[in-house]
This record gives sequence, C-alpha cells and structure tokens, in this order.
Amino acid sequence: MIPRYSRPEMSAVWSAETRFRIWFEIEAHAASAQANLGVIPKDAAEKIWENGSKATFDVARIEEIEAEVKHDVIAFLTHLAEFLGPESRFVHQGMTSSDMVDTAFSVQLTRAADLLLADLDDLLAALRKRAFEHKTTLTIGRSHGIHAEPTSFGIKLAQAFSEFSRARKRLEAARAEVAVCQISGPVGTFATIDPSVEAYVAEKMGLAPEPVSSQIIPRDRHAMFFATLGVIASSMERLAIEIRHLQRTEVLEAEEYFSAGQKGSSSMPHKRNPVASENITGQARLVRGMVTPALENVALWHERDISHSSVERMIGPDATVTLDYALHRLTGLIENLVVYPETMRANLEMLGGLHNSQRVLLALTQAGLSREAAYKAVQRNAMQVWQMQGDRTGKFAELLKADPEVGAALTSAQIDEMFNDADHLKHVDTIFERVFGAERAK
Amino acid sequence: MIPRYSRPEMSAVWSAETRFRIWFEIEAHAASAQANLGVIPKDAAEKIWENGSKATFDVARIEEIEAEVKHDVIAFLTHLAEFLGPESRFVHQGMTSSDMVDTAFSVQLTRAADLLLADLDDLLAALRKRAFEHKTTLTIGRSHGIHAEPTSFGIKLAQAFSEFSRARKRLEAARAEVAVCQISGPVGTFATIDPSVEAYVAEKMGLAPEPVSSQIIPRDRHAMFFATLGVIASSMERLAIEIRHLQRTEVLEAEEYFSAGQKGSSSMPHKRNPVASENITGQARLVRGMVTPALENVALWHERDISHSSVERMIGPDATVTLDYALHRLTGLIENLVVYPETMRANLEMLGGLHNSQRVLLALTQAGLSREAAYKAVQRNAMQVWQMQGDRTGKFAELLKADPEVGAALTSAQIDEMFNDADHLKHVDTIFERVFGAERAK
Amino acid sequence: MIPRYSRPEMSAVWSAETRFRIWFEIEAHAASAQANLGVIPKDAAEKIWENGSKATFDVARIEEIEAEVKHDVIAFLTHLAEFLGPESRFVHQGMTSSDMVDTAFSVQLTRAADLLLADLDDLLAALRKRAFEHKTTLTIGRSHGIHAEPTSFGIKLAQAFSEFSRARKRLEAARAEVAVCQISGPVGTFATIDPSVEAYVAEKMGLAPEPVSSQIIPRDRHAMFFATLGVIASSMERLAIEIRHLQRTEVLEAEEYFSAGQKGSSSMPHKRNPVASENITGQARLVRGMVTPALENVALWHERDISHSSVERMIGPDATVTLDYALHRLTGLIENLVVYPETMRANLEMLGGLHNSQRVLLALTQAGLSREAAYKAVQRNAMQVWQMQGDRTGKFAELLKADPEVGAALTSAQIDEMFNDADHLKHVDTIFERVFGAERAK
Amino acid sequence: MIPRYSRPEMSAVWSAETRFRIWFEIEAHAASAQANLGVIPKDAAEKIWENGSKATFDVARIEEIEAEVKHDVIAFLTHLAEFLGPESRFVHQGMTSSDMVDTAFSVQLTRAADLLLADLDDLLAALRKRAFEHKTTLTIGRSHGIHAEPTSFGIKLAQAFSEFSRARKRLEAARAEVAVCQISGPVGTFATIDPSVEAYVAEKMGLAPEPVSSQIIPRDRHAMFFATLGVIASSMERLAIEIRHLQRTEVLEAEEYFSAGQKGSSSMPHKRNPVASENITGQARLVRGMVTPALENVALWHERDISHSSVERMIGPDATVTLDYALHRLTGLIENLVVYPETMRANLEMLGGLHNSQRVLLALTQAGLSREAAYKAVQRNAMQVWQMQGDRTGKFAELLKADPEVGAALTSAQIDEMFNDADHLKHVDTIFERVFGAERAK
Repeated sequence: MIPRYSRPEMSAVWSAETRFRIWFEIEAHAASAQANLGVIPKDAAEKIWENGSKATFDVARIEEIEAEVKHDVIAFLTHLAEFLGPESRFVHQGMTSSDMVDTAFSVQLTRAADLLLADLDDLLAALRKRAFEHKTTLTIGRSHGIHAEPTSFGIKLAQAFSEFSRARKRLEAARAEVAVCQISGPVGTFATIDPSVEAYVAEKMGLAPEPVSSQIIPRDRHAMFFATLGVIASSMERLAIEIRHLQRTEVLEAEEYFSAGQKGSSSMPHKRNPVASENITGQARLVRGMVTPALENVALWHERDISHSSVERMIGPDATVTLDYALHRLTGLIENLVVYPETMRANLEMLGGLHNSQRVLLALTQAGLSREAAYKAVQRNAMQVWQMQGDRTGKFAELLKADPEVGAALTSAQIDEMFNDADHLKHVDTIFERVFGAERAK
Repeated sequence: MIPRYSRPEMSAVWSAETRFRIWFEIEAHAASAQANLGVIPKDAAEKIWENGSKATFDVARIEEIEAEVKHDVIAFLTHLAEFLGPESRFVHQGMTSSDMVDTAFSVQLTRAADLLLADLDDLLAALRKRAFEHKTTLTIGRSHGIHAEPTSFGIKLAQAFSEFSRARKRLEAARAEVAVCQISGPVGTFATIDPSVEAYVAEKMGLAPEPVSSQIIPRDRHAMFFATLGVIASSMERLAIEIRHLQRTEVLEAEEYFSAGQKGSSSMPHKRNPVASENITGQARLVRGMVTPALENVALWHERDISHSSVERMIGPDATVTLDYALHRLTGLIENLVVYPETMRANLEMLGGLHNSQRVLLALTQAGLSREAAYKAVQRNAMQVWQMQGDRTGKFAELLKADPEVGAALTSAQIDEMFNDADHLKHVDTIFERVFGAERAK
Repeated sequence: MIPRYSRPEMSAVWSAETRFRIWFEIEAHAASAQANLGVIPKDAAEKIWENGSKATFDVARIEEIEAEVKHDVIAFLTHLAEFLGPESRFVHQGMTSSDMVDTAFSVQLTRAADLLLADLDDLLAALRKRAFEHKTTLTIGRSHGIHAEPTSFGIKLAQAFSEFSRARKRLEAARAEVAVCQISGPVGTFATIDPSVEAYVAEKMGLAPEPVSSQIIPRDRHAMFFATLGVIASSMERLAIEIRHLQRTEVLEAEEYFSAGQKGSSSMPHKRNPVASENITGQARLVRGMVTPALENVALWHERDISHSSVERMIGPDATVTLDYALHRLTGLIENLVVYPETMRANLEMLGGLHNSQRVLLALTQAGLSREAAYKAVQRNAMQVWQMQGDRTGKFAELLKADPEVGAALTSAQIDEMFNDADHLKHVDTIFERVFGAERAK
Repeated sequence: MIPRYSRPEMSAVWSAETRFRIWFEIEAHAASAQANLGVIPKDAAEKIWENGSKATFDVARIEEIEAEVKHDVIAFLTHLAEFLGPESRFVHQGMTSSDMVDTAFSVQLTRAADLLLADLDDLLAALRKRAFEHKTTLTIGRSHGIHAEPTSFGIKLAQAFSEFSRARKRLEAARAEVAVCQISGPVGTFATIDPSVEAYVAEKMGLAPEPVSSQIIPRDRHAMFFATLGVIASSMERLAIEIRHLQRTEVLEAEEYFSAGQKGSSSMPHKRNPVASENITGQARLVRGMVTPALENVALWHERDISHSSVERMIGPDATVTLDYALHRLTGLIENLVVYPETMRANLEMLGGLHNSQRVLLALTQAGLSREAAYKAVQRNAMQVWQMQGDRTGKFAELLKADPEVGAALTSAQIDEMFNDADHLKHVDTIFERVFGAERAK
C-alpha cells in the first residue's frame, strides 16, 4: 500500500485509527450483550459506551505498550482502560483476542468490498456507455493477433461489460464469505461466553455469525476472498492489454487520453504511451501475487496459529487498495478513451477482403464442393493475396472471380455479396440484448 | 495426471476417446439445429448422427493427420469425414474450431465437477458420522501448538464439515461458471451461424449459452473454476495437517488406519507414518500451483489467442484428477481414522489444569479485581506450574488456593468448580445444530 | 507430462524403467562399498552386480507388491530379491529408502539438466546465426508498443542471446545444486552406514556428497532448481511474445514458418497464426506454476516428511519435459523464422521521422536552448505529425525547418543530418562484441 | 512495507530521498563522463556536481510537478534544474529515463542485498554457536512426525547452518545478477550517447555495464533476484516450523525466549506461544508471493513497456524489508532459544527403544536371516511395544530377548549393545567437519 497507488477512502478503511475504533465498537457491543444477560452490570456497559465513544485512541501510546507486552490486543485494551476507568474490567469478558481482531477484519474487508463494488459499478457504467456509442463501429476481430473477421468495437466493450458483470457477482459472493462475526471465546467453544453475544454483535456490525469457529474465523473464507480479487485483477489485465494493443503505433485504433501538460518520454518528445493500461497490467500482477499467500494461510495448526496474521496485515490493505486504485483508473481510461473509427476501417481493409474467407468457404460447400476441396480453393487464393504488397483493397474478390473452380460454383454477384462487411453485424442487437438486457439495448 | 494418483472414472472424462465423442455430439447437434433452420438438408443431419454414432474414432489416425495439417480440429473433422461420406461437407457449417473445442471443454469440466461434488458428499458424510461419534470426546484445543482450553474431537470434525460445506457451495458456483456453450462462429459475431444453433446445442449438452463470446468462452470463467479448486485443496491440506499433528509420536491422539501387510519404513520396522495425509498435503500444493497459470490465461489477446490451450491440456486433467484422488483418499482416511480418547484425556491433563486459566481470570475480575491485577495473579501461578517437571495433575488449582491474593477473592470450592472440564462442552449442542441443522443434531 | 508436449529422450529420463535401473545401480554401488569395508562379503557384492545387471524389472509386478506393502521402495527391493536370491539380504544394508530415492532423483534431475543445457546451446546457436544475419537490418524500436527510435533486428536477437546466455549459466548453477548424493541412513546420522559409502556411491553416480542430510537431501536445493526453470521459462515467454507481436497483421515484420500442408484455421482459410510462439507462451505459464509448489516443499517437518514426494512425482517430469519441448520448439522457430526487412523499413517510416525527435532535442539544447524550451519545441511539431493522416514520410523534418524557434537554432542541413537512420546503428559492433565476444563479432 | 515489519537501515534504502540522491549521482557522473568526451563543457559538469551536491530534494515539490507532467523522471529533472540553473540543460544528455531509473534500482537492490548478506552472516554465526553448544545433545529424530532414530540437536542446527550457507551463496549470485548499470539511450543503441559513459558511471556506482540493454535492464535479472529471495524465505520457514514443532506442549524440547513483561494471550494467562516463528512463517509466504509477479515482469513488450514498474515499486521494498526483518528476528530467536535437553532425553525414551529397530534388523540379517524374515521379526515385536500404554522404557529389548526367532540369532548381550543411544552420534565429528570446516569443528 503505497500512496502513489492509493485512494483516500480505501486507505482510511485500513488506518490504525479505523481499526481501533472498530475494535472498540465490538467490545462495547459485546458489553451491551453481556449486560443484557446479566453477566456484567448494565451501567458498566453504558459507561463503556459513554467513555469509549469520547476516547481518541493514541496509536503511538498503544505501540509503546505493545513494545512491552508484545501483544497488540492487550496493548489496546490497556490503553482503552485508561479512558474507561474501573469499568474497564468488564470489557472483553469471556472473549479472546481473535474475537475482536477477526470480527474487525471482517468489517474492514466488507467495507473494502463495498468500495470495490462501487468501483465495478462505475466501470460497468463506463463500459455500457461506450459500448452503445460504438455498437456498430466496424473493426477487425483478431485471433492470434491476426486479422480474422469483422466485429464492432461495441461488441468488444460488451464482452468486457459481460466479464465485469461476472466480476461483480463474484465479488458479492466473496463479500458474503467474509461477512462473518466470531465471539466464541478460546478455541471457539463458547465455554466462557454465551452464543447470544455473538448474535448480538454480529447484527450490530452488519455481519452473520460464524457457524463454528476455532478461536478464529476459518481462513478458507479469506482465501476465497483474495482468490476472487485475483480473478478480477486478471480481467482488468485483459482489458488493459486490449487497450495497449489498440494503441500500438501500427494499429492505433484507440488511445488513452493524453492531457495538455503531459509528457510521454524524457528523451523522445513525440511519445504518447498507454501508461495507464500498462500500470494496470502491473497492478494485476501484484493482486494476483497475493492469492497464493492467502491460500497458504488456510492450513493453520489445530485450533489456530498466528502465521496468517503478518500475511493479512499486508495483503488486506495491499490487495484492496491496489485493486481500488486500478479499477478507478481503468474506469477513467474507458470513459476518456479516444477511439479512431477511421483507422479501424482502414485496418479492416488491409488484407484485401481476406476476412471474408469463411463466407466463401461456406458458399462453396453449399454449392456442392466437399469441405476439403472448398478449403483448398479458398486457401489457394487467400495465400496469393497474403503475399501481395501495397494496397490490397478488393483483391481477394477479384482473384476468386478469376479462379476457374470457384467461378464454376459461384457467380460474380454471389461473390460480391459475400464482401459486404456490415453483414457481420447482423446479430449485434441479439448480442447487446443478451448482455445489457432488453430495455437497455434499445 | 499420473496413474498413481488417478481414479478411473475421472481419468475417463479426460481420455482422447471421450473428447472425440463429445466433439462429435456437438457437431451432430449443431447439424440438427442447422437442418431445423433449413441451412443444411434434414437427411444430411440424420446421416451425420447415424454414421457418426457408429464410428470408432481412431486416436492414432487423427494424430497422423494432425502431424500434417498441424491443427487438431481439422484432423478430427477429416477423420470424421471418413465415416460420414459426402454428408461430411454439412458438418461444422458456419462454426469455428473453438465452438466445438470450448464447448467440449465445458462438458468435461462440468462432468469433472460432478464427480468432485460426489467426492465432497462422501467426505461430508464421513465427517458427519465421525463428528457425532466424538461429539463429547474431550480433547485439548491448541492455539500456536500450545495447549489452550478443552474442546471435543467432534467439534474439530464439525469445523471440517462446515469448511467442506462451504467448499461444496463454492464448487457448485464454479461449476456454473464453466457450464456454458458457445456456437458463435469466428470472432463470436454469429455472422455465419444463427444464435438459435447455440441455444439448441447448449440445451442438448446440459449447458447455458455464453451471453457474448469472442470466438472463445472468456477465460475468467475457467480462472474462477481453477481458483476455487485451489481453495478446496487448501482446505484439504488443513484437515490433512490436523491428522498429521494428531499422529505425532508425542501426541498420538489419532492415527491413520494401518493395514495388515503395510510397511512404514524400509529401514525402521517400527514406523507407522501418516502417509495418506502427507500425500494429500503434497497434492494440495499441486492443485494450488495450477491457480496462477489459470489466472494468467485470462488476458488473451484481442478476440483470442491460443496460449491458454497448452495450459488447459495439462491443468484440466491434472487439477481435477488430483483433487478427485485426494478427496477420495481423505474420505477413506476419515472413515477409518483410529481415535484414542484415552490419550486425548491424558494429554489434556498434562499442564496440571492450566487450560482453565481464563476461567480463573474471569472469576477474579467478577470478584472485583481489575483485569490487570487478575491477569498478573493468574499468570504468576500459571508460570510456576509451567516450570514443574513430572506429573502436574491438579497442581494449578492447588497453587491458586494457596495464593493469598486469589484466596482472598475466591473460596476453595469456587476454584474447584472452575476445573470441571465437561463445562467446556456446555454449548456443543448449539454448535452441532448450527453446523448440521436441527434434525441431524439430535 | 503429456505426449503432445514431450520429446523421447527427456521422457526416457523419467520412465519407471530408468528409475528402477538407477535404483539398482545405487544399491549395487553401495554394496560394493560395503564389501570394501568388510561389512558384507565381497562375493555377495559381485553377485548383486551380476544378477541385478541381467534383471529386467517388471513394473507391473512391482506395483502389485506395492499394493500390498504400500511402500514403493520395499516393493522394489522385494522384486529385486527375486533376481538376486540369497544375496538379497546384503542389499540396502544400513540404508534408508530416501538414500536410494533421493540420490536417484538427483541423477534424473542432472540428466534432465544436461538435456536442457544442450537445448539452450541449440537455441543460442540459432540466435547467434540469425543475429549476425540481421545485424544491420534496420527496424523501429518500440517502447510501450509505440515507435521509439530505430534499432536493428540483429540487436533484438543479440538481446535474446544475452538473456539465454544468462539462462545457461543459471541452469548450470541449478544443476550443481541438485547434483548431490545422500547415503546416510535413518535421520542422516551415518549410525548404520559409514560415510565412505556415500563418497563411493556419489563418485560412481557423478554426484557430490551432501554435507549434511536429514534422511533426505534438503529441499531448498530442489526449490532453487525449479525456481531457475521458472526464470528460464519466463525468458522463453519474452522471446515468444516478441515473435507474436512481430507477426501481428498490422506489423508483419516476421512470421513463423508455415509449412505446405498446414492449416491455420478450420473456418478461415486465410489464417497464418503464430501458434508455436503462443504454445510456448502457455508452456511458460505451466513451468512457472511449478515454482511455488517447489518452494512449498522446502519446509518439511523435522528430519523429513513425505509431502514433497507427490509434488515431485509430477513436477520433476512435467517441468523438465515441458521446458525441453518448448526450448526445442523455440529453437526451430528462430531457425526458420521468416523475416521481412522491407516491412520493417516501411513501418519505420510510418511516423514521418518522429523517431528522430530526441536528436533534434539534443541539437537544440546544444545550440543553447534550455532543456524545457527544446522539449516544448520538439513536442509541438511532433504532435502535429502525430495527428496527420496518410503518408507522413519526411513530414517531421519539414515542419521543424518551418518552425521559427527551431529554424533560428538549426540550419536546414543540420536538421537533415539528424534524419539519417543508419546513424542509429553506429555502435552495433560494440554491442555485438560485448554479447558474442570479439572473435565471433567479426 | 509496513513499519511493524521494517528495520530502519533497510527502509532508508527505499526512501524517496535516497532514490533522488542516487538519481542525481547517476546524472552527475554521466555529466562528468560527457565532459571528458567533450560533449558538454567541463565546467558545466563541475557546476552540476557543485550545485546538486548541495541541493535538498523536495519530495512534495517533485510530486507536484509530476501531477502535471505525469512523468516522475521529468518531474525530478525539472526540480533539479531549479538548483542547477542554466547548466541544467547539460544534464541527462542523450540519456533516457530508464538509464537513470534502472541503474538506480540496481544500486538500491545491491545495497539491500548487502544488508541481507549481513543478516545471513549474523544468522549463520548464531546457528554455528548453538550447534556446537548442542553438538552431542541427544534428541530423537523424527520422520513423518514419528520417532525414527536418535540424532543430536546440534546436528539439526548444523543442517540449518548448511542450508543458510547455500542461501548466502545464492544471494551473492542474485546480487551479481542485478549489479548492472545501463546508460544506453533510447532503445539501448547508444545512438545518442557513447558507450564509455556507461562504463564510467558503472564503475563509479559499483556496478558492471549491462552487455546489451533495450532501454531497460532486462527483467530476467530481477526475476532471478526475487526468485532467490523466495527460496531463502522458504528456508527460513523451515527453521521457524522446526521451532514451532519443538515448542508444542507435548514436545517442549525448545522454546522461544519469553521476556519479563510479555503476555501470551489476552484471555489465557498461562500461554507462552512461539509467536516469532509463526510470524516468520507468515513472512515467508509474503516474500514467496512476490516471486510470481517478478517472473511475470520478464516478458515485457518489444524494447520495453512499463508494466513492471508498479510491481517493482512494491516488491522492491516489500520483499527486501520483510526478509531483512524476518532474518533479523530469526537470528534473535536462535540466539536466545531456550533448549531443554532433559525433555529431549525423556521424549527419546517414549517408545521403549523402538528407535533402535533398524539396528536389530541389520544384526538379524548379518546373523543369517533373510531381509524379509528379519523385517517381520522386528516389526512383530515393535508393534507390541507400540500398543503398550504407560512407561515403556526398555520394553523393546525385553521382548526381543524373549522372541524365539530373535533369540536364536542374537544373544542377550548383543541385543543390549544395540540399545546404546550414544552410538548414533559416532559420526557427529565427521558431519560437523563437513559443515563447519576442519578448524571450527575442533
């Protein structure tokens, strides 16, 4: 989590101040529940709320205490006691550190997930807008980096929209995985605390109770959360790489917005580089790199060991802050993306019509040729066009008309018909309806 | 995928024969749909079914053709044509290779997922059975590898049950991710094939149509699938490591079943090693190692490149076969696990009652001591017990009774009360009800 | 390890037959050493060699025995005893299974490394040959996918040569890491076997003795080996991606060789795809995915646990076989790569001379402008060229000459001088000498 | 890089101030070299040194400029110009940003490596000291977590010493990989800068010139560096896990030092947990997680793209700071480790002498029994001891003497001889000599 790649709202989720405030709330809610049960005096619970709510937690002071006791929770509770006075002895009754720490981590992860869901909504909105804008902007589709057949730039963006809709659904599921509360005492038996306290705190903190804990919330939940972030990061990388490809000098079908004072290179003043999408590519690697540590965190020893803690102190903030930054940046990139339909059109013509080779193949088989014979006839003419230099506009159709075997099967008019590029988009409405729903697709 | 770690049913999903059979079915269903639309003759579609169903695909012959054309799908179609005769020219009409290949991969992955779901059901059944068997088998809970407070062996197994219930839910979601069909032609525009063909084939193959494809089914789906397997593998590792810990010579609270002729070591005839759980631990690493390649497969270039293919040819079979083997082995391990309640009891006594330290702490605070003072009083006596050698049974209670500060706050009878271990299980029914549901928990 | 991506010589290293043969040799050499020490009779050692050398190990029979004893080494020794007769009791004296298994794995890994080193030599030879062929083939260098300044295609290949020279050196170091022998008995104390046996076997098997083992050769060695393969795989991916970029339709500066009968697409007969480099890209992901399991294998429990074994049974063959296949394929790809210098030249001209922008910048600062003012002047004219459509040949120079500020600082002739592209290669000999050495660079 | 897991000296390597200072030095040395060549005036180079050396770089000001130009190097150069005055136009002549940035990164990585090498030296010293202290402290060796045969605690530490000696050698090699300088201008052709400048700067900065760069130092070097850190982290995890095992309540053969005011648990005052080794375990996961992003950074596009940059901004500091912290903590842990030889001895006796089963096996085969028969005889008696409850001291020897088959082959005295545990350490001097060298082993 470095300032360069952080946004304030997400960073705030992970500040020490936020954590201590959540810790206090969990303790205070637990105290209320204990008071309701008669385990501690009612007015003690009230005092805890009253004094604790006014407290300003002093991070430096807590670290000072921790340096002695070597236990961060005890340090916090000791500091809290300084505000609470004698009532402090009713705090943390029957609880174990992880009841507070793990529940607080759940709160932070769900808050982070909420910000990421909002990020995804922004990205989806940007993708939808630009997709409709370019619904019929003809462009060449490429497989293996090689011209294949035409598609539209809107369809490309519809694919991204569809992918990030899945990302959103996955993130919701991942959020639910970690939206659990644990107040179950040492080794999770509730021997020292009634299960109703957990239910009470869970409800107040917007979480569900963990069905069975072992002094910690089981880490398969967190593994699933971070694995999901890794998949989302990979989808971001896919879109970023698409932009980087489109901005290549020889392709230049789209370009990241380049602001007035911006400089592309310290040495080459002519450069306009896709730095945002390259940056996002790198950030995807970072988020992905946090998946394996999260998976390795699952197999803790017996009821718990604390090896997961140092991992989570880093990847908790790092993965969510990085993803938040990158999603936000990707949204801006899409919103402001400069699109060049003329270049798309020009590139489309580059291969002299070869992108319609399959149509000819189909027509030849329909006209009675075997698939094998048709394939050979088409490939024979295609390879000739492939080797031509310079402007190849219309060359493929010309050659086909002149080929005796093809000519015997198809008339010149039939051949011309196969070279109407707009035909490739005849199902674009169906696709948009599938992706965006019937209303939006109008 | 090596025979040593494979089970036949899962291996069969990934055999060349199975793949070619699925390929044929996809082509034949597509032909039926095309015939319904009038794109190809009705009787051509029938002939395709008739001749193809009788065909025995010759893997060696297909490889021979592939060696020449360097394209596996064309090799298959050429071989298929040898069975179909002239009707072969109506096969694959308007489709692209990936329509067949990707849809077939979806079929294989969903079949594999179904086998894995059945594996999980078996494991869950074994865990449930053993959990109820040991619902009140008292055992020490351990945090950091150190004795903490008592729990029951059944609660440990209930935790595993709960974790694998989540695994099952996740796998269902992962299965749905990849249960999609694509028949959309080059670059996914349906320019050469009607969307209704896709709907028809999807239904026949038990899949849903992919809303928008780009000549391939987008790989974020597969990434999510393999990431989920990685999380499940990590949960398996957790349970395997628990067993390995319990079987340690000094602990020996449970042991893998050791069959009659079995040998533990080539040199040390006395050895009985937890080899199954160690094996599962290693297999978890293998499955987890396939997550990152799957994530790296997402960002393909433009409408598609084929870099994902070599990855999937390996991790498709390897991840599912390995997980199937390991889950099955884990189930057997749990079913036959030899449990030693007496050793659990003996280990529990090891620390002279220290595992009840929190109860004393709570009682002291209830009796009016500050949390700090109570903690110090308890720790003072606990550390003395900690340093004793030999049999420590009952020592902690003795010391507490003799401590002036503790004695002033608690009577001898009150102290004895805190050392009734069965009290630790007072909420075991609640826990079982949460995990297994009300009926099963009876 | 699947046949599609395997070459026979490397596969043979990993066959069961090879493994059993190595196992026998280790046992027989150990017997010779023990006989020299007088621990076993001399003629027993001779008989072991005599009968064992003639034995044909029956893999199925060994598996049958293993099914009963559940221990692969004991199964092998039992089978071996069937050949050796009464002398079999002198086999494996004082050894533990891992003495044989780990040493054999070292032999397999070093043999595999030797094949990979030969692969690298072939690749280096191909790169050197093509680099000299294209030492002065002018091509545009690209940063961020955007035209930067000219370089030569030979320099690109020299970079790859330099990178794979490093790969070779790393692989040699990695080979040395695993080229160790262990014959130290249970928990590695030599309590049951003299250290001289280890020294004897090590020398015979071409290995060094492990200084201190713990019943196993420590797995940090193997981790380093597989991590190194992961780095090499990543370098392969880099070169493969370079080729894929160069073959893109809009770039087409180089192309994988496309054989006579080859077909690029089942539906689009015009396609010529960079399938070899895409394949290599995927294989790099696979090899890289094996690094983490190898790293996770290091932290075994105490003197050893066997969780590493299932991992190594897969990644041992898989990583080396895949890398061998991919390196070999990459070599063929480079040897036969079709290079288009004319397209390189044409692409170079695309930006109307903008690639010389830095030279102008430098000349302006030399002529007295501040760096800031010079940068602005150059960028101002560059951006105009950037936005031009159609043929831009020579446009940048024209604009610069017409710019009052630039014109005041530089004469028209001085400007022309900066547009001599060959100047960019003035240090190509120095570079080649650094990379290939003085002699070769002639 | 979070303060909790950082040490000041390593953090300082990565501060913005350090980076800007290194950037300046590279530029100033390059200016000196350019002045020597006559490319810029001698006194300009002197002024650059003079004014720049006195400059205090204002991080906030640089960030402000960067916000406008969106290029960190240009922002720095602009800020630098504010100090240098008119001479600033002679700075960065013919260079490209990466010449400065990549060379500076090399300087930071080598400085970090030097600190890590010192950390390893400290750890090695601690391991050597404790190894000699416990050279003959008898302890049971464990395979699969099960008692195997005796070894010494010193041998365990000698194994760690040997492993970290390898780590040191690997880190030296990794340091050499990244200790390279690049001053080669756009796309690395030296078109705008003489190669002698690179040689000059390299020497001044303590680096070697990169033989051929492509506007960047190739990232396979950095991948190798981070992969090596991942291997070292895994070795740290191995040692940390050993300690965690030894500190388990049932084992308790060694324990992390527990300071006076320390608290083990907020709820259970009796707890003394191996938190340092658990912490190190987690940190190993973190460092390992950075290997894959580093590997993914290798395959940049063409001469360079900038996707590696965001990755390195995080993993550069994070991996080295985390490793530095963890190595230092591990050293303290080893130095202060509390060892319990009596418990080791007591644990050793637990299995009634079974750890000598192999010796009996060997003696029986020497006495004429077939290996199979001997194995059965030993296993038969061993399994009886295995199933005994309570004190088993001496039981295995007793049973063997009473076994008719064994009794026929071995005398009672011969059997007793096999139960002298000290015999297991007869080769400890040889092992120590191999690991620590002849002199130190005296």
